[in-house]
Amino acid sequence: MSVISEGDLVLLRFDNRRRFIVKVVKGKRFETDKGYIELDKLIGLSYGSTVETNLGYKVLVLKPLIHDIIGSFERRTQIIYPKDLSFIVYLSGISSGSIVVEAGTGSGALTATLAHYVKPHGKVYTYEVRKDFLEVAKRNLAKAKLLDYVVFKNKDIGEGMDERNVDAVFLDLPDPWKYLNVAHEALKPSAPLVIFLPTIVQVEKTLMAVREHKGFCEPRVYEILLREYKSIPEELRPETWMIGHTGYIVFSRKIIE
Amino acid sequence: MSVISEGDLVLLRFDNRRRFIVKVVKGKRFETDKGYIELDKLIGLSYGSTVETNLGYKVLVLKPLIHDIIGSFERRTQIIYPKDLSFIVYLSGISSGSIVVEAGTGSGALTATLAHYVKPHGKVYTYEVRKDFLEVAKRNLAKAKLLDYVVFKNKDIGEGMDERNVDAVFLDLPDPWKYLNVAHEALKPSAPLVIFLPTIVQVEKTLMAVREHKGFCEPRVYEILLREYKSIPEELRPETWMIGHTGYIVFSRKIIE
Amino acid sequence: MSVISEGDLVLLRFDNRRRFIVKVVKGKRFETDKGYIELDKLIGLSYGSTVETNLGYKVLVLKPLIHDIIGSFERRTQIIYPKDLSFIVYLSGISSGSIVVEAGTGSGALTATLAHYVKPHGKVYTYEVRKDFLEVAKRNLAKAKLLDYVVFKNKDIGEGMDERNVDAVFLDLPDPWKYLNVAHEALKPSAPLVIFLPTIVQVEKTLMAVREHKGFCEPRVYEILLREYKSIPEELRPETWMIGHTGYIVFSRKIIE
Amino acid sequence: MSVISEGDLVLLRFDNRRRFIVKVVKGKRFETDKGYIELDKLIGLSYGSTVETNLGYKVLVLKPLIHDIIGSFERRTQIIYPKDLSFIVYLSGISSGSIVVEAGTGSGALTATLAHYVKPHGKVYTYEVRKDFLEVAKRNLAKAKLLDYVVFKNKDIGEGMDERNVDAVFLDLPDPWKYLNVAHEALKPSAPLVIFLPTIVQVEKTLMAVREHKGFCEPRVYEILLREYKSIPEELRPETWMIGHTGYIVFSRKIIE
Repeated sequence: MSVISEGDLVLLRFDNRRRFIVKVVKGKRFETDKGYIELDKLIGLSYGSTVETNLGYKVLVLKPLIHDIIGSFERRTQIIYPKDLSFIVYLSGISSGSIVVEAGTGSGALTATLAHYVKPHGKVYTYEVRKDFLEVAKRNLAKAKLLDYVVFKNKDIGEGMDERNVDAVFLDLPDPWKYLNVAHEALKPSAPLVIFLPTIVQVEKTLMAVREHKGFCEPRVYEILLREYKSIPEELRPETWMIGHTGYIVFSRKIIE
Repeated sequence: MSVISEGDLVLLRFDNRRRFIVKVVKGKRFETDKGYIELDKLIGLSYGSTVETNLGYKVLVLKPLIHDIIGSFERRTQIIYPKDLSFIVYLSGISSGSIVVEAGTGSGALTATLAHYVKPHGKVYTYEVRKDFLEVAKRNLAKAKLLDYVVFKNKDIGEGMDERNVDAVFLDLPDPWKYLNVAHEALKPSAPLVIFLPTIVQVEKTLMAVREHKGFCEPRVYEILLREYKSIPEELRPETWMIGHTGYIVFSRKIIE
Repeated sequence: MSVISEGDLVLLRFDNRRRFIVKVVKGKRFETDKGYIELDKLIGLSYGSTVETNLGYKVLVLKPLIHDIIGSFERRTQIIYPKDLSFIVYLSGISSGSIVVEAGTGSGALTATLAHYVKPHGKVYTYEVRKDFLEVAKRNLAKAKLLDYVVFKNKDIGEGMDERNVDAVFLDLPDPWKYLNVAHEALKPSAPLVIFLPTIVQVEKTLMAVREHKGFCEPRVYEILLREYKSIPEELRPETWMIGHTGYIVFSRKIIE
Repeated sequence: MSVISEGDLVLLRFDNRRRFIVKVVKGKRFETDKGYIELDKLIGLSYGSTVETNLGYKVLVLKPLIHDIIGSFERRTQIIYPKDLSFIVYLSGISSGSIVVEAGTGSGALTATLAHYVKPHGKVYTYEVRKDFLEVAKRNLAKAKLLDYVVFKNKDIGEGMDERNVDAVFLDLPDPWKYLNVAHEALKPSAPLVIFLPTIVQVEKTLMAVREHKGFCEPRVYEILLREYKSIPEELRPETWMIGHTGYIVFSRKIIE
């Protein structure tokens, strides 16, 4: 398991900024401005080893983690960032075996994260109206070897979700306030609804809809900020630029009369 | 599973601030300043229901999620917060089936989070030199029904870890720079080492030790900030007070010569 | 000027948290739980000296700066914080000699800051409908020795401002969108309008009103966050608690057809 | 004063991102990718007016404020940002008439800010060892019409400051801990020393030196973060990118035995 085989994904790390997820295919070269690597010579090597390009540039070969793979996803839509993905999952309380529903799929970053945590016994049902997004998401999930844990549905959740008694519902849609009934029907009593929203106006509308709906308990609204630091001890300080905003997370739970 | 049984933990939610995790024990009362609830009358009720105290105060009965239960843990030490726990776990890439090592156990908040995600097929080996902390942590993990996935060790990791080829090592200790060799020995090649540190000086020392050690790739340093918002739409704004600092997360991976 | 005289305000600093602004009055004692100080013995002493209470507790005697004095203001309303006061003033471009208008006065924290910067040749015209607030603000400005630079008006700005061609207008009111015409009339062409608002909904309404009004250029919206650090070098880190939110600053400038 | 004269600086605002500070010179054109403006036609116009480029693009003509002018400074060094400049000034308590010392001058952003606030009766003494920086700073201060309030010194403060009894000392140097004696000599008792530092390690060293020196009261350490929001009400949210870090502000005051 620590040895690289053909077909594996590897993370080729040139430095903290230049990192590439590459599939090990026999006879292929991976080319960069620092020279190329013959992928053949990775086969049989242990992860964590250092190889050199033909120009003598040293490259670390790492086993990609889930966040590395998601970071390399093909994107058609804005994807949710690790800082938000991790908190969304934690809030939802899911773990191996959970049955969850997500809409919309987008490029599949949240789908992959959910699948990663519910596997091997759980399942992610994901809805997306755009067929082209769904194709991208499927390719991305295949890359992450998580296809087995996901059911893709090219369907508008305005017509309802097919699932019942699910452990959590995740909405990453521009107008989640329209689907509170749909989410309520699908959820197990007391189970969480987690919504991701880029703008404040969307948060306001969602909060108003939740209050009116009466089928959810008082929501909570969160925002996560990530500061990365320069990791050279003599120059330790936050990076000059940071992502100032991605979105807000609204969390509630289904209640019953 | 949606119906409350004797012995279950329930989350009694009076309002967003007053929330209690209570074990349903026959014949017992849960008393608050808003009146009491006879726990007997919860048995057989669906989660997500509302009950009333003897004084007529409405109380939601929810199924506690992992973060609710950890939030109710008995504490002997400063515990790691949800915003950090979730990011630490995501960075580490672990999931169901992972074998991980943690030191020190403390009150068990990270232990419980790790166990929650590696269950049912994985295992958490957790080291703690203080026997009294370990007893607290065991009680906490029992409360979270996660004891089966944890091996507790009352041992100083200065003497080494017993595990080899593990998927991730987590250090929540005042002087992690002393244990880089120990972590390196225990880790699978390429696997992550994640360290949590309250002060900047500790981060500096850790970065210097990692650089000297040569068995780890260039570390990254993160800080997570959580802003919670008032969830009343007409008054939407961040809460007046926030937790300004908990700690820094240092992330690296084992490399080999 | 470096020697304490009767009638001076002094800052008695017991430690970073216990700091008191005290007027030096002959024959009076200042009493604390660490003992008392006879104020007589401060007269003739240099600022920056250390005195002792009758119980031997050492106390620094400092000359209070503008932010110290404002921090000691009597409060009837939520006051604007230093982090916001300083940025508001800087954005507005005012300096000695500027003529500015403010509404409402509240407890006078912004009034005092404006007066501090426009003195000795400028003037602050401040409007407040509540007489009781105005009395408090006057006492506060007297304490800061800034009364000479302020004209207090117990008047509703809904009826218009009396000033014309002013260098800046500052609005700290719950409904500033109602007073855009009034501010426009008072301002010199191109001069800034700066608005302070606690909630997002207020910002939205203000932005919509500014866009419709057409007499102001495209506004900018800012939020300032202040992190204070523990100042012991070995324990350097941000304070555990911070003020997570005070308000938003909207900045625009008068334009003409 | 509201009418544009030859020699004035104007702010030509194409949109929130494209803003230019231009000196009105007879017979000159200001050229952009949206067409050119004949500067002659600005003379006699009121500030706050809109003009058109030869291509019909509408451009606002505003009177630049101090932060606009500083934003257009020629730079040889990293300059301090408005969020920090404003807080540094506020902390220091200076106002019209204050006598202050600054080292080093750099490109003059702090120098200009200090001059703006101490004018017309105060003075800024600014030290810089690099002659080329000093020339840039002088040109910048001339542009801001603040030359009269500044004395430039091409001198190493390691040899001492010539001033005594000053109201505040500002240090923006890589190694301020070496100059605590020099600052102490120059300061009036109780007067503030404000230091700006990019890295944590510098803060640590400064705190240690201040503690050892014994001539300053316990310092405070601050960091200011600025979030700018998209100002379209329907899309209100923080900008995606923000400046994650500029520096730390250390504040102390001279004490005497």
